Amino acid sequence: MGRTVNVGVIGVGRIGALHLRHLATRIPEAHVVAVADVRADIARQQAAAYGVPEVYEDAMRVVSHPEVEAVVVCSSTDTHADLIKAAAEAGKDIFCEKPIDLDLDRIDAALEAVSDAGVRLMVGFNRRFDRDFRRAKELVEGGAIGKPELLHIISRDPSPPPLEYLKVSGGIFLDMTIHDFDMARYLMGSEIVEVYTAGGVMVDPAIAEVGDLDTVVITLRFANGAIGTIDNSRRAAYGYDQRVEVFGSQGVVRTENEYPNTVWLADSQNVRRDLPLHFFMERYVEAYVEEMQTFIRCVAEDREPPVTGEDGRIAIALGMAARRSYEASRPVSLADHMSS
Amino acid sequence: MGRTVNVGVIGVGRIGALHLRHLATRIPEAHVVAVADVRADIARQQAAAYGVPEVYEDAMRVVSHPEVEAVVVCSSTDTHADLIKAAAEAGKDIFCEKPIDLDLDRIDAALEAVSDAGVRLMVGFNRRFDRDFRRAKELVEGGAIGKPELLHIISRDPSPPPLEYLKVSGGIFLDMTIHDFDMARYLMGSEIVEVYTAGGVMVDPAIAEVGDLDTVVITLRFANGAIGTIDNSRRAAYGYDQRVEVFGSQGVVRTENEYPNTVWLADSQNVRRDLPLHFFMERYVEAYVEEMQTFIRCVAEDREPPVTGEDGRIAIALGMAARRSYEASRPVSLADHMSS
Amino acid sequence: MGRTVNVGVIGVGRIGALHLRHLATRIPEAHVVAVADVRADIARQQAAAYGVPEVYEDAMRVVSHPEVEAVVVCSSTDTHADLIKAAAEAGKDIFCEKPIDLDLDRIDAALEAVSDAGVRLMVGFNRRFDRDFRRAKELVEGGAIGKPELLHIISRDPSPPPLEYLKVSGGIFLDMTIHDFDMARYLMGSEIVEVYTAGGVMVDPAIAEVGDLDTVVITLRFANGAIGTIDNSRRAAYGYDQRVEVFGSQGVVRTENEYPNTVWLADSQNVRRDLPLHFFMERYVEAYVEEMQTFIRCVAEDREPPVTGEDGRIAIALGMAARRSYEASRPVSLADHMSS
Amino acid sequence: MGRTVNVGVIGVGRIGALHLRHLATRIPEAHVVAVADVRADIARQQAAAYGVPEVYEDAMRVVSHPEVEAVVVCSSTDTHADLIKAAAEAGKDIFCEKPIDLDLDRIDAALEAVSDAGVRLMVGFNRRFDRDFRRAKELVEGGAIGKPELLHIISRDPSPPPLEYLKVSGGIFLDMTIHDFDMARYLMGSEIVEVYTAGGVMVDPAIAEVGDLDTVVITLRFANGAIGTIDNSRRAAYGYDQRVEVFGSQGVVRTENEYPNTVWLADSQNVRRDLPLHFFMERYVEAYVEEMQTFIRCVAEDREPPVTGEDGRIAIALGMAARRSYEASRPVSLADHMSS
Repeated sequence: MGRTVNVGVIGVGRIGALHLRHLATRIPEAHVVAVADVRADIARQQAAAYGVPEVYEDAMRVVSHPEVEAVVVCSSTDTHADLIKAAAEAGKDIFCEKPIDLDLDRIDAALEAVSDAGVRLMVGFNRRFDRDFRRAKELVEGGAIGKPELLHIISRDPSPPPLEYLKVSGGIFLDMTIHDFDMARYLMGSEIVEVYTAGGVMVDPAIAEVGDLDTVVITLRFANGAIGTIDNSRRAAYGYDQRVEVFGSQGVVRTENEYPNTVWLADSQNVRRDLPLHFFMERYVEAYVEEMQTFIRCVAEDREPPVTGEDGRIAIALGMAARRSYEASRPVSLADHMSS
Repeated sequence: MGRTVNVGVIGVGRIGALHLRHLATRIPEAHVVAVADVRADIARQQAAAYGVPEVYEDAMRVVSHPEVEAVVVCSSTDTHADLIKAAAEAGKDIFCEKPIDLDLDRIDAALEAVSDAGVRLMVGFNRRFDRDFRRAKELVEGGAIGKPELLHIISRDPSPPPLEYLKVSGGIFLDMTIHDFDMARYLMGSEIVEVYTAGGVMVDPAIAEVGDLDTVVITLRFANGAIGTIDNSRRAAYGYDQRVEVFGSQGVVRTENEYPNTVWLADSQNVRRDLPLHFFMERYVEAYVEEMQTFIRCVAEDREPPVTGEDGRIAIALGMAARRSYEASRPVSLADHMSS
Repeated sequence: MGRTVNVGVIGVGRIGALHLRHLATRIPEAHVVAVADVRADIARQQAAAYGVPEVYEDAMRVVSHPEVEAVVVCSSTDTHADLIKAAAEAGKDIFCEKPIDLDLDRIDAALEAVSDAGVRLMVGFNRRFDRDFRRAKELVEGGAIGKPELLHIISRDPSPPPLEYLKVSGGIFLDMTIHDFDMARYLMGSEIVEVYTAGGVMVDPAIAEVGDLDTVVITLRFANGAIGTIDNSRRAAYGYDQRVEVFGSQGVVRTENEYPNTVWLADSQNVRRDLPLHFFMERYVEAYVEEMQTFIRCVAEDREPPVTGEDGRIAIALGMAARRSYEASRPVSLADHMSS
Repeated sequence: MGRTVNVGVIGVGRIGALHLRHLATRIPEAHVVAVADVRADIARQQAAAYGVPEVYEDAMRVVSHPEVEAVVVCSSTDTHADLIKAAAEAGKDIFCEKPIDLDLDRIDAALEAVSDAGVRLMVGFNRRFDRDFRRAKELVEGGAIGKPELLHIISRDPSPPPLEYLKVSGGIFLDMTIHDFDMARYLMGSEIVEVYTAGGVMVDPAIAEVGDLDTVVITLRFANGAIGTIDNSRRAAYGYDQRVEVFGSQGVVRTENEYPNTVWLADSQNVRRDLPLHFFMERYVEAYVEEMQTFIRCVAEDREPPVTGEDGRIAIALGMAARRSYEASRPVSLADHMSS
């Protein structure tokens, strides 16, 4: 076990509370010394549950806390860029939930601050730490399928988030597809150079009213010549659907959904099993532990995190290109988007 | 069992010999009275094997044979349109292998002859008769997944055909994807109104030299608003890969590949099974029987075939649009292509 | 293709009609010259359907028909032994449906006649020709799992046969388990030397009234030291359940049931597929073709059939031992049973 | 969250260290106040790792510690009975790893002490807490398969333990099969009334030299008339094999092994996946958490544990009967074994 890292957690809503629990109970190398949340009662409640000594409403108190070495940023998206800058300037290593920001200029400014300060920044693309995708990546990278040529990502949520959330989320491309853009780059080991989006509103007309889509199919061209697709729906009746397939010159790798058990029942009707794990909190719980464990180890062992600020930036740029493709009804090159 | 139908088979190469065998041994309602092939020795050999009384080099002798009620056209593509016209004019019902022709004007002329003569024409989209796709269609049509929203077709060959064949095949879109266009229409029960093609040559540079592609991903827009993709590769190291997935408002339907057996072996290395059925002759053998059985029954029972000349025409038009999309690097509407 | 073999079929009830169809339509090397059935109308009907020239009520007319080289015996069990003897004396090769007889002395007499006449006798253990069990056997024999140590056979019918049938069937051990005894010997390549039966009547009390069981679990000891089990039930709510597993020093081989399609449906309830193929006529149809093809080839090519009269005898002896074990509530050695 | 329970852990070898880790990091309601191990250095090391204040060599110091409410007994089997008695007399609730003891008289004395003191005793049959078996149990109990009639348990270890361990383990029936006897009772909800053992030494002749077996198949008769089998091997080349199947009047329930990921790879050789989770520490890690969580909750909420001392006793009695059956080569009734 490496040395202990003193951590401050900013934002303890759903995802922040999850990271806090993992830091406090599953990652012995981490010691949470402070939490902050603009909702003071929630902050106090979470701090009490995990014996965190310091509790603040003001995130900056965590950033400036002298014992805090690393901050875990789980507050609302609009606060990420400023907190990253402040933490960088305070010399803290940073884990930041995706997205870094919805604006490329603001992302660039934040990344520059990180770079100037020489601190670490890891972005929360948790799926890279899922046992299935990691194993698929390992096989692809190890040459098991030869040269990768085709990629398909299925990524469907069980149901759309509340409209209030959708309004501030940046839209399906920056909120949901962002994960799949990162997965595509991760699995293929090549940059996406062009996207083409076909999409629509099939789940709920109210989603159209807030200017968003709920169903999209995006075609990807990679720098290495490979072609891919991302399939997103905001509503899969059977729950969370998270699968990938990478086809190469010598074979194919596929993942399947994860299930709550392996039990098969056959009766006079059919042969059946329970539905897959319902949503990301169920499916990716161990991936979240692994992700945070990785961040803490990078801090403790002075290593570069495997998911960087640049990864976070590229996914946003891809989301923007996908949106532009949808609006223009034509493929869009990434060249235009990679500079702010 | 219905009444017996007297059949003439034109062309007894690979696919024609297959149909002949099925007509002679698996379909009691069919009686093959004549076969023709420009290669006289092959024609004689096949006729002898299945006890067919009349053997010709000249296909027109089959068409004009007074006892022949229905002709099964399996000769080379460039002969299809003329044979359809001649058979129609002779009042024969017609089964024609895909594609009808590589030219829409010639197709239209052939379909007009069929229409004028009031004979039946069934086009050989054998996959509609596969047990898996048929069951998927049944479920989709029966409402099991609600309103169809997304479709994915994976259709990969084990290895590319000879270059000589590729040169006269019409290219990947008219030779290979044509099956998938038909499958897409069949499964979704809606017309494709726009296609966007991303493609390349990844398997063999020689394919580029004859002006063809070997790997394509085509995005489909359907009249009912649904979106789909077709994934084609000319070379899957593990054999024939033929799968579909239809996602709808209330669920999803998927098919898997077919295997030569259900045996699983686990040893100290891994858990494994044999590769899927290697190519179309293995995978679709029962579908071919079912297809020909269906044609014969339509003739015997005076019913309209489930796969029409119009189906054959639309698949060609879609292939042309897909090619144009590839060349223009933009989505192409089908409106332009549906009239010749 | 080998030379044509002239065949006579005796008994054209369910299984006889099946064999007749395959001989007439799927096996080009066979030519059926005569059929017989004590039910004259059925015999005529079947003969007409497949163009068989000679039709008799009296099986002996088939046996003595000068053109018949091989007889396929599918009449009721009580006629098998006498027909085998008569056919052997007439110098015909013989395919006989299982069981040869329910009495070891009568079996021995029949086998002696076969031996004396120097004709071939193949017994109808169709499951040896199933693609799954054959592949499992191939792997076991090829050393894929090392030395075989454990065997499990699951063999469950969808529903019990009529009581009238059960009364003359010889009971579950001679009627149903007989297939599994043969499968056990086939897969393990070793003789069964001891059996222990645990059984009961769980499906229908009427089965107890005719002195039979409907649910049995039989433990097998093999000459090579391996141990196995057979699980039989006369009623599986989900249809025909036919699976095997062979475990060895270096791995394990398992088969799964066969399904009518590979389609998976997921909706808000569960993930499901259709039930497995319902009964032996669906599951083993291709195995029956393969079996008869094999017999015809053995005749045509002057080879020894892969399933012999001795195989038929041993399975009966094992059924008797299993019954005795059940009655005595103790393991029973086969030594006592192998001589009549 | 319930009230906190103060726990003492006795024995922190492999399984004790596992429980300690879970108590310290995964079960917030537990507070470990003391650990003991005869190996003082190991005790100190484990205590330090999880911040346990009190460390002893002498287990009795844990038992008599005034703050300890519940003891977790993970020391060697020969100490279990005495520690149970001492803990019961000290008024502590007890979790005890299986087996309670290898002698029924000693078990009875321990259970009597528990009963006299009115404390709780839970025995460590961890598999009841596995997500797969628990779901199977739930379905069986809920009537999904009707009346249970047949049971099969496959339970194979990846490799035999050291001979030194085997010598003191009580043999395969008390060390390994004991889990399966408990699983059989758990799944079927009925007592086993008769066992019949077929077994041998197939893995390693040295196992015979210490008087033990390494491969057994045990037939079970249940009080409700159902029949079952347990298949045990000490060496599965492909790893830990843990599956059950319960067949009933209206259907069947099966579990599959658990895998480290869902990734499938197909190349020109075959279609394959990684081996199942290798052994109990991998397969049952979450079951162990669940088990200990359940024990702590029973203590905190004053409820009866779901696995009792009687369950522990019956499994031992069944192991003895299975051994006697093996020695006598006949089925053995449990009536003789249920009283000491």
